Amino acid sequence: MAAILHVCMTCRAGQPVPEGSEPPGRLLHDALTAGPAPEGVIIRPVECLSACDHGCNIAITKPGGWSYVYGRLTLEDVPEILRGAALYAVAPEGIVPWRERPVIFRKQSLARIPPMESPND
Amino acid sequence: MAAILHVCMTCRAGQPVPEGSEPPGRLLHDALTAGPAPEGVIIRPVECLSACDHGCNIAITKPGGWSYVYGRLTLEDVPEILRGAALYAVAPEGIVPWRERPVIFRKQSLARIPPMESPND
Repeated sequence: MAAILHVCMTCRAGQPVPEGSEPPGRLLHDALTAGPAPEGVIIRPVECLSACDHGCNIAITKPGGWSYVYGRLTLEDVPEILRGAALYAVAPEGIVPWRERPVIFRKQSLARIPPMESPND
Repeated sequence: MAAILHVCMTCRAGQPVPEGSEPPGRLLHDALTAGPAPEGVIIRPVECLSACDHGCNIAITKPGGWSYVYGRLTLEDVPEILRGAALYAVAPEGIVPWRERPVIFRKQSLARIPPMESPND
């Protein structure tokens, strides 16, 4: 089963959004989906990841993997988000070796959550 | 299947921990497990939820439910954490009605992540 990259569509990234403009979260989602998704990754819009103080935000999950939430992302980060998502999709339990991890994933983690099913259950 | 309340055991809550002292995260875990767990909730220690700037942290998950991460928690919050976890365990998709939600869950959310399996899949 694929990894899911959740992108908050409603994020204002702490800024006022002028009438008729798209919120930064939607622009980030649109940029992430402008090309083909990485192998093994489904990109899915979501309304609010409840991390509004640190937007734009994404979360990445997969069955049996750790879930991660990253914040303070901009359009410039799109290539590295996609690269990191592809690495996550193939990494055991979603744990990408530290050195291979995009810098935004190393430095802009908001939280991680253990896998739903633990091997020790 | 039960809800899992993950408690970060290593959290220093931004403070130095004197030698021989327990980190605040461990004290929080010990207080949460001092009595019986709420019905339908398993309390599980975890090493680091990667939300160190906002510790102490907990995360709550269940199959088919939204996952939530909460931060800036103290020992005073133990009764409300347990009450909120019990409500989460029985709430459809883990979405506790806003008014019933403990104030700490309303105001100290660090992030939430959609359920692994979406009804629209």
